[in-house]
Amino acid sequence: MSDNYILLDYGSGGKSAQRLVSQVFVRHFANPVLETLDDAALLHMNGPIAMSTDGYTVDPIEFPGGDIGCLAVNGTVNDVAMLGAVPKYLSCGFIIEEGLPMDVLERIVASMGNAAKKAGVLIVTGDTKVVPKGAADKLFITTTGIGEVQRTPAPSGHNAKPGDAVLLSGSMGDHGLTIMALREGLPLEMETRSDCAPLNHMVAALMQAIPQVHTLRDPTRGGLATTLNEIAGQSGVAIEVEESQVPVNPGVAAGCAVLGLDPLYLANEGKLICIVPQEFAEQALATMRSFPEGAGAVQVGTVLEPGKGLQQGQVALRTPMGGRRLLGMLEGEQLPRIC
Amino acid sequence: MSDNYILLDYGSGGKSAQRLVSQVFVRHFANPVLETLDDAALLHMNGPIAMSTDGYTVDPIEFPGGDIGCLAVNGTVNDVAMLGAVPKYLSCGFIIEEGLPMDVLERIVASMGNAAKKAGVLIVTGDTKVVPKGAADKLFITTTGIGEVQRTPAPSGHNAKPGDAVLLSGSMGDHGLTIMALREGLPLEMETRSDCAPLNHMVAALMQAIPQVHTLRDPTRGGLATTLNEIAGQSGVAIEVEESQVPVNPGVAAGCAVLGLDPLYLANEGKLICIVPQEFAEQALATMRSFPEGAGAVQVGTVLEPGKGLQQGQVALRTPMGGRRLLGMLEGEQLPRIC
Repeated sequence: MSDNYILLDYGSGGKSAQRLVSQVFVRHFANPVLETLDDAALLHMNGPIAMSTDGYTVDPIEFPGGDIGCLAVNGTVNDVAMLGAVPKYLSCGFIIEEGLPMDVLERIVASMGNAAKKAGVLIVTGDTKVVPKGAADKLFITTTGIGEVQRTPAPSGHNAKPGDAVLLSGSMGDHGLTIMALREGLPLEMETRSDCAPLNHMVAALMQAIPQVHTLRDPTRGGLATTLNEIAGQSGVAIEVEESQVPVNPGVAAGCAVLGLDPLYLANEGKLICIVPQEFAEQALATMRSFPEGAGAVQVGTVLEPGKGLQQGQVALRTPMGGRRLLGMLEGEQLPRIC
Repeated sequence: MSDNYILLDYGSGGKSAQRLVSQVFVRHFANPVLETLDDAALLHMNGPIAMSTDGYTVDPIEFPGGDIGCLAVNGTVNDVAMLGAVPKYLSCGFIIEEGLPMDVLERIVASMGNAAKKAGVLIVTGDTKVVPKGAADKLFITTTGIGEVQRTPAPSGHNAKPGDAVLLSGSMGDHGLTIMALREGLPLEMETRSDCAPLNHMVAALMQAIPQVHTLRDPTRGGLATTLNEIAGQSGVAIEVEESQVPVNPGVAAGCAVLGLDPLYLANEGKLICIVPQEFAEQALATMRSFPEGAGAVQVGTVLEPGKGLQQGQVALRTPMGGRRLLGMLEGEQLPRIC
């Protein structure tokens, strides 16, 4: 666009707003549904639908391994996929602070276009609001995704069963530590990168190969520990995790040591928890490992009958020394604006 | 909730976030889909779908006739309805500034719950982010709606035809002037109120009574003038509006005179433009008038073949003196954060 900075009237619904839409959004999200520019998008879906929404407020908006744009696409794609659904369409709402450099917005919108292409979804409708300088910090994006449910009952946090294997698709804490290190200005010895990635292709393969998948969840805010607590609570079971089995990249482990953080509570943006009957664990791991984003898949724990040492809803960590300690939900906030 | 103010860790994804969801959101939006609290909602729809999203940043967040919550529900319900669809499900993403009083949030969430009930839609999934004080101004809400399309081709801004009647469901400028007067601290002689209302029930009746409806649009940001320009451009037609026919409440007219504003460019939040073949105009008006929100429905103009005085995409106003002046799109921004 001709202007170098976002001006207030780009959010007016008038002429400049129309230019922003056609010259930035439609160009990078190009698809026939969006191009009709009606108030709503007309879509075709078969059967039951999964719908999910997330607001993205990450600070900084660009970071090693990604930016707020690819996060906004992948995060919502992944939430839809966690219902075992095939994500198809995304909407996006931008809230932009007056004065945001146009080239920054362009980079982020292009990154969303790329992420949508990789995930195989169409961005079909959207909205832009511009607020005066100081009324927001740079850029917030809210995306909503809908997808076709592949089978009902869908995988759910309510379906974990005693005896099930708890699998992880890869290393924990990469996104969370990357953002924290950047914010704290930590000179880390080893580079870390956000793991921001779409999980829908891996989920589709899992659903195809193992219809017996009980639960799929991506451990974002609150990390692995918080997500497992939610599942244990929803399913009325207990979960035990082998600490030594949880993959953590060396850079993340080193950064956590410096910052006094636990990688089990750090946000992930391209990893999933898969809970299946133990007899399907190996097959599920092999399926995950056939994707680059699941190359590090491992079994990290087991679902237990509550009442035998652990109560319903409890999650415990078995330490390398053979001890067991309770793993609670995240309390307080490690760092706001992590995603 | 026990706390009087929103704290940062309400957005953490941890324990306090869970409390906020269950004690505030789930309580006011009560429905079985939302209550599963999975990452995505599992929905049932038949056939083609309309999807729309809007971010709401209105300042102040409470005003005569409504608040940001009912605006966020009705605005998105109306955008889905404009495709002639029946809105069914809404998602909502909250971006909250740390320190927002809890009772304000509760009032707004309760208002959303009421609005959803009136519109007959379910709020089925959501997300909450809390950003540090100063990183946002109080509260932003982004809603996304999906609905069942009643017929294809759906009514569209691309379907206006020469000879069609241009109908309005009621008075122009009520929402825009109310917000402006409040922001400017104008002591108006006559009270004005936002017209914030759901239009989906009126649209359903219109679609039922007159399958020949060509275009439905709600003139929100940019007002009637901007929306008619969009339609004229999309449909490749010209549009003429009789200035004397456009209903404007006396309080709005008086406020516009004081502030030097044109009600044709002010935002509306509970009015629609309906374009139908002239022979169905009376029937469409009678249908609209059978609803309280359409009591003031009138024909305000006509769609013209371009080239006879007006070019393709042009909108003209016929003044009471018999003159004709071009009505352009909104240029610049009358006031940011109007919705």
